Amino acid sequence: MAAIPGTVSDSEPASAVVTAVDTYDVRFPTSRELDGSDAMNPDPDYSAAYAVLRTDAGDGLEGHGFTFTIGRGNDIQVAAIDALRPYLIGRSVAELCADPGSLARDLTGDSQLRWLGPEKGVMHMAIGAAVNAAWDLAAKRQGKPLWRLLADADPEWLVRQIDFRYLSDALTPEDALQLLRAGREGAAERAATLGERGYPAYTTAPGWLGYSDEKLTRLAKQAVADGFTQIKLKVGADLDDDRRRMRAARAAVGPDVRIAIDANQRWDVGPAVEWVKALAPYDPYWIEEPTSPDDVLGHAAIRAGVAPVKVATGEHCQNRIVFKQLLQAGAIDILQLDATRVAGVNENLAILLLAAKFGVPVCPHAGGVGLCELVQHLSMFDYVALTGTTDQRAIEYVDHLHEHFEDPVRIERGAYLPPTAPGFSGQLKAESIAAYRYPGGTYWAAEGEEAAV
Amino acid sequence: MAAIPGTVSDSEPASAVVTAVDTYDVRFPTSRELDGSDAMNPDPDYSAAYAVLRTDAGDGLEGHGFTFTIGRGNDIQVAAIDALRPYLIGRSVAELCADPGSLARDLTGDSQLRWLGPEKGVMHMAIGAAVNAAWDLAAKRQGKPLWRLLADADPEWLVRQIDFRYLSDALTPEDALQLLRAGREGAAERAATLGERGYPAYTTAPGWLGYSDEKLTRLAKQAVADGFTQIKLKVGADLDDDRRRMRAARAAVGPDVRIAIDANQRWDVGPAVEWVKALAPYDPYWIEEPTSPDDVLGHAAIRAGVAPVKVATGEHCQNRIVFKQLLQAGAIDILQLDATRVAGVNENLAILLLAAKFGVPVCPHAGGVGLCELVQHLSMFDYVALTGTTDQRAIEYVDHLHEHFEDPVRIERGAYLPPTAPGFSGQLKAESIAAYRYPGGTYWAAEGEEAAV
Repeated sequence: MAAIPGTVSDSEPASAVVTAVDTYDVRFPTSRELDGSDAMNPDPDYSAAYAVLRTDAGDGLEGHGFTFTIGRGNDIQVAAIDALRPYLIGRSVAELCADPGSLARDLTGDSQLRWLGPEKGVMHMAIGAAVNAAWDLAAKRQGKPLWRLLADADPEWLVRQIDFRYLSDALTPEDALQLLRAGREGAAERAATLGERGYPAYTTAPGWLGYSDEKLTRLAKQAVADGFTQIKLKVGADLDDDRRRMRAARAAVGPDVRIAIDANQRWDVGPAVEWVKALAPYDPYWIEEPTSPDDVLGHAAIRAGVAPVKVATGEHCQNRIVFKQLLQAGAIDILQLDATRVAGVNENLAILLLAAKFGVPVCPHAGGVGLCELVQHLSMFDYVALTGTTDQRAIEYVDHLHEHFEDPVRIERGAYLPPTAPGFSGQLKAESIAAYRYPGGTYWAAEGEEAAV
Repeated sequence: MAAIPGTVSDSEPASAVVTAVDTYDVRFPTSRELDGSDAMNPDPDYSAAYAVLRTDAGDGLEGHGFTFTIGRGNDIQVAAIDALRPYLIGRSVAELCADPGSLARDLTGDSQLRWLGPEKGVMHMAIGAAVNAAWDLAAKRQGKPLWRLLADADPEWLVRQIDFRYLSDALTPEDALQLLRAGREGAAERAATLGERGYPAYTTAPGWLGYSDEKLTRLAKQAVADGFTQIKLKVGADLDDDRRRMRAARAAVGPDVRIAIDANQRWDVGPAVEWVKALAPYDPYWIEEPTSPDDVLGHAAIRAGVAPVKVATGEHCQNRIVFKQLLQAGAIDILQLDATRVAGVNENLAILLLAAKFGVPVCPHAGGVGLCELVQHLSMFDYVALTGTTDQRAIEYVDHLHEHFEDPVRIERGAYLPPTAPGFSGQLKAESIAAYRYPGGTYWAAEGEEAAV
């Protein structure tokens, strides 16, 4: 059994090292169509602060990772990834792939860089990009999709990948080991089931705030026809508009399809409760990001106030410590992890284990640039080798920008089909980078010429 | 009464605007002497990502602001300040100084930049530098030290300076107005008292982790001789060492001087309680940063476990929302605001008001580069025109790097004397910037030549 990533490549020169970390500021002009518009983000240009680890292993393999942003500031995010280069250049490829956790620990442990967080914001997301690139490389070198690498790995090794600092009052290494060992039972059968049925998805495509009612209705009906059993609507800008849009959506999908609503942090605690109650007649399934992602106690108060509507959050939660508290406080019904907000796969393993320990289902945040491509691996590992269930779980799906990826997600009948190509599925096509590099890529250069006319 | 900053300058051309935002990466080689060493930060090079607002008002006044960092990554912090330039260039000087809150709101409200936080880490600290520079300019134009400007301002105007988003479950504008109106009673008398006695300080100078017992003892005795009634020791690396150092410190200062201890986030919840209990025989006054600054519930558990030792935190708390929860959860005895971690004076006004509402004393974090210079203004405003007391309050004092400032703090008999020069006191001397700009300043250039020999 290839329990430890990297060992399969031991036949290569032990001296192979990371030789370059190439970074790119990639921006897509999504604001043109109001794709992705919501109550807090009226005009996002979906972007990636993108990193490629190159090596001298001679196998032609690279590690690709990125941070998702929504436009301005993507250059700052790239600068933060650049600052990590000294930790990567010259690092043994075999050791890096055998233990990405050591990289994660080195990066979060740099005391001077840590001051810029700690473990939050620009610096922490940069670490996530680097760490995810290392996992992509490790999976490619094992010839496996990442979810399979994780599901095949020894529980003991997985536990060593996790930084339990600040978690031990809620989750210990022993707890994690127990959960992972129990998760191995029946894993092979579940992997087969996954191949046949895929992993449930829900779609946000109909519900962007900038869309007309006609477009909302058309896309909601299309979602149901495509096999989705849950859709999501952005809310929070205007209550009358939200009532009208919820009514239209409910009319379009009927009573049996779940409609989640998403306020993108728009409210304070009191207004959140009032607004959600006002929409209750249309049977919302969950309220997502009702308030600040930092407000653990606020989410707990909102959850108490809006039940039985569920409370979901996570896409902006900065690290495992906030998730720990959301669970300890009974503040959420649904945990929405994000692939590029925290310090990469290692921290998301901790978050999956916390959720499993507390019995809270994980429905990852996706969309953006390549987030669907990444998070599917985490949920599939969770199903195959940790919680063993997809009950109450679904991965967000948004049909944007997949065409720019080498190994785009495949959706069939409202489900994600498991990736089969080796790696973490987050590799952009070279021609997409060439076109959308900012500001020098061919797309943006042409825009500049147009603006100058 | 000059209730609204900027109005005193109305005789100037209304067209005066901000013409430049010059930024500097300034680093001091403090790691050479282990000044500032603690359990998490063994070798800091105290640094400032520094910004100067220049205008065409013709009065020769500039606004100076900065983010304090500890070395690597200071360039990323500068890049983040640079990203704010479009919000500053061309802005009316009179309007900016009459309403710095509008700048703060514009900066935190940029939806694309907000994605990089939200309201935390590199991007949020950059906003703090810009906003503090605006307050520095406003105070200079009024010809007042900032504490005096704040203490003289109309309560209604101060309330308008505050962003209450995410606070209304704990503090409303009406609450704030009541507190500020009550705080005005007796303000003139307290301002006079402040001028005579100063504001209490405590000193961290003896307690850096890298210092020998001999140096610790010598500096602790010196602190008492200098009139300090509280010192602070860094702890958390090794329990036996901490016992020995606490014993030495207690022997040096006697039973009546308070000894605070500071773990700089070293522990998980359980170990924090055990470690503090092990040091209890030496009567520590407070335990500072026992665990992650993100762990509101963890601090609450630690506080319950270590009483009557007090729990203090705040220097790494990312924003007002975390402080709100620390207060709501009864997690802290002492609130340690920081001048450059949050989004500037406006957010610190919210934090001071939260603390006042909950009756928790504020003892600001200082030291670093210029933090003493800044926080004194906030505490003095709090004393003169908000809580009206210095009971249980003291501002941290560290005798580092003050010589680089145009208007350095003045300490006498263990107290900060109120600044009298107009502004926020954070202006570095031009020759210090020239020497310590990184990597091109004269000091670092000489270092480079030495290393090359």
